[in-house]
Amino acid sequence: MKTIKVRLKDRSYNILVGKDLIASCGRRLKGLDIGRDAIVITNNRVAGLFRRPVLRSLKSACLTALFLTVPDSEKAKSIRIVTGLIDRISRYDVGRRIFIIALGGGVVGDVAGFVSATYKRGIPYAQIPTTLLAQVDSAIGGKTAIDLPVAKNMVGAFYQPRLVISDIRALKTLPADQIRSGIAEVIKYGVIKDGVLFEYLEKNAGKIMALDDASLEFIVSRSSAIKAGIVSKDEFDRKDVRAALNFGHTLGHAVETASGYSGYSHGQAVAIGMAIASKISSRLGILPGREAARIISLIERFGLPSSIRKNLDFSDIYNAHQHDKKFAGTNRFVLPSRIGHVRIVEGVPDNVIRKVLKESTSPSN
Amino acid sequence: MKTIKVRLKDRSYNILVGKDLIASCGRRLKGLDIGRDAIVITNNRVAGLFRRPVLRSLKSACLTALFLTVPDSEKAKSIRIVTGLIDRISRYDVGRRIFIIALGGGVVGDVAGFVSATYKRGIPYAQIPTTLLAQVDSAIGGKTAIDLPVAKNMVGAFYQPRLVISDIRALKTLPADQIRSGIAEVIKYGVIKDGVLFEYLEKNAGKIMALDDASLEFIVSRSSAIKAGIVSKDEFDRKDVRAALNFGHTLGHAVETASGYSGYSHGQAVAIGMAIASKISSRLGILPGREAARIISLIERFGLPSSIRKNLDFSDIYNAHQHDKKFAGTNRFVLPSRIGHVRIVEGVPDNVIRKVLKESTSPSN
Repeated sequence: MKTIKVRLKDRSYNILVGKDLIASCGRRLKGLDIGRDAIVITNNRVAGLFRRPVLRSLKSACLTALFLTVPDSEKAKSIRIVTGLIDRISRYDVGRRIFIIALGGGVVGDVAGFVSATYKRGIPYAQIPTTLLAQVDSAIGGKTAIDLPVAKNMVGAFYQPRLVISDIRALKTLPADQIRSGIAEVIKYGVIKDGVLFEYLEKNAGKIMALDDASLEFIVSRSSAIKAGIVSKDEFDRKDVRAALNFGHTLGHAVETASGYSGYSHGQAVAIGMAIASKISSRLGILPGREAARIISLIERFGLPSSIRKNLDFSDIYNAHQHDKKFAGTNRFVLPSRIGHVRIVEGVPDNVIRKVLKESTSPSN
Repeated sequence: MKTIKVRLKDRSYNILVGKDLIASCGRRLKGLDIGRDAIVITNNRVAGLFRRPVLRSLKSACLTALFLTVPDSEKAKSIRIVTGLIDRISRYDVGRRIFIIALGGGVVGDVAGFVSATYKRGIPYAQIPTTLLAQVDSAIGGKTAIDLPVAKNMVGAFYQPRLVISDIRALKTLPADQIRSGIAEVIKYGVIKDGVLFEYLEKNAGKIMALDDASLEFIVSRSSAIKAGIVSKDEFDRKDVRAALNFGHTLGHAVETASGYSGYSHGQAVAIGMAIASKISSRLGILPGREAARIISLIERFGLPSSIRKNLDFSDIYNAHQHDKKFAGTNRFVLPSRIGHVRIVEGVPDNVIRKVLKESTSPSN
């Protein structure tokens, strides 16, 4: 097991990465002294897989558990669902010492985190992420949010968990597409911060996709450490440090928006975004062409797309990109300068973006 | 004008207390560089009084303004109202640099603060409190919340404003009952922390109720400084420092609950709570009897109640008290030991509480 510390003064916490950690979650949570009565927010699919081991572990540590489920889709990130959860929790919370466990992927983490942030102005919570995407990204850093019809993640809070338990055995229950979706974020960490991780991915794609324990522990712990380091320096996303995490995301979100949140998974959209950003960087002379090729090749190696499907209109992507909230009015890209390093570039000429977008629209992908 | 600093590291901010400050709010907000487009959350009554001067001041500082109104009652503190506000704000927030102004009393401050805390995971906001209660208490310290049917303030966040502008001239628009409601909190500050303020209230009740400028500036700035000092030491209400602010409130809330939130104003309920707590303290030998008498006499001097009406059932009050969320299972009181000093006392014998409650139920109040 690896332990990674997220250093945020009185809000510091550990990320535990290893095998079969769910079996000991009760003892570990008990040790934090954050409450006696766990409210486990999850969905039916995840509950089907992990309800019994989680319950067994909590009980053996003399913690009680109430399981509350939300829909298994982005639809769970709604004000209606949050209101329903809080109503249920407030009726349960009489004479108890409650805390919350987010058991599931990014959606569950966002909803459970936001409920934890706002119920009684904040109660303790822990993350037990069960997808690769959540383990390497969304469960770390305290960003919680729900959606509004007008846009995703419009209502939320920065609210840190007290512990993150990443059981890599949980990943064995995932379909290959969900592993790939998480891998897109792992590739991102390699490009923005960690040449060693990037090379590891190049050399071990087969073992990773075969869900080899040691490989998963390596990429999850290494990714978690990078995210933890960035979050420690820029908790509230104000200093352009955390901005590096947006590599591939601004364009990726634009691709997601243009496809109506349905055509691509988050990981696929990010993969496309990273490929396009790498091409833009190369065209601007910031990133050597062979490094851009390595990035694109790694993306494709994991079965992720590096170009846009023909049936997405190119101007839609361009327009959606202009409206992304991370833009705040100016054209602003996170571009790699070499593997393991990015810089923020403003005012990329429109014609460069248009040209790369056009090149990246494949008729057959 | 007095300037009081709330010291919370990177979340520090000033409270300005003085005459006619609304006329210069635009310039002061401009100086903070928190945005260019103000969204002023208020209610119709307050907008009728201050919309024009606020708008004029914002415009003269080249800030734009959008006024959004909420109902003028506790009903505004609902998820439905918050959702409506955020929906409206998100549609307005395109190509702008928005920040929020809470213009009004405690309800407006709570709602606007919670919207500010959660919209896009937090945007800057300022408080322009227009009631005495808000100026001396609710606008300071970053507690924001809305209600659930099950209980008040169940959903919220700790989220600090960037500036508090307390224009004491705004108080001249208030009915005497609302001044009295704020005075209950000012008396509280005197009892828990400030013998000088307490004596000032004893000597200047007439001038205060006549809304004399100098007297209002004195009591508002002195109260603000006490609250600011306490909040600086215990931002998240975890260290028993902020607990002193609950003097009179635990019992006061019980009185409010037992009367269905309608029989008493918040200030009246707090006044009753302070009187009862003082009697309990005196009966326990913690507070000299003559000091308890001074507190009760000051409460009555300002036309506030010091005993419970007969038509409130005494056991209801006792039971509601047991369920107050500040109790967390144990009997726990903030009791004065002398004017200007309180201590937290646990395990007050039931028979003492019952006896004092019985004594405090007046047949004719």
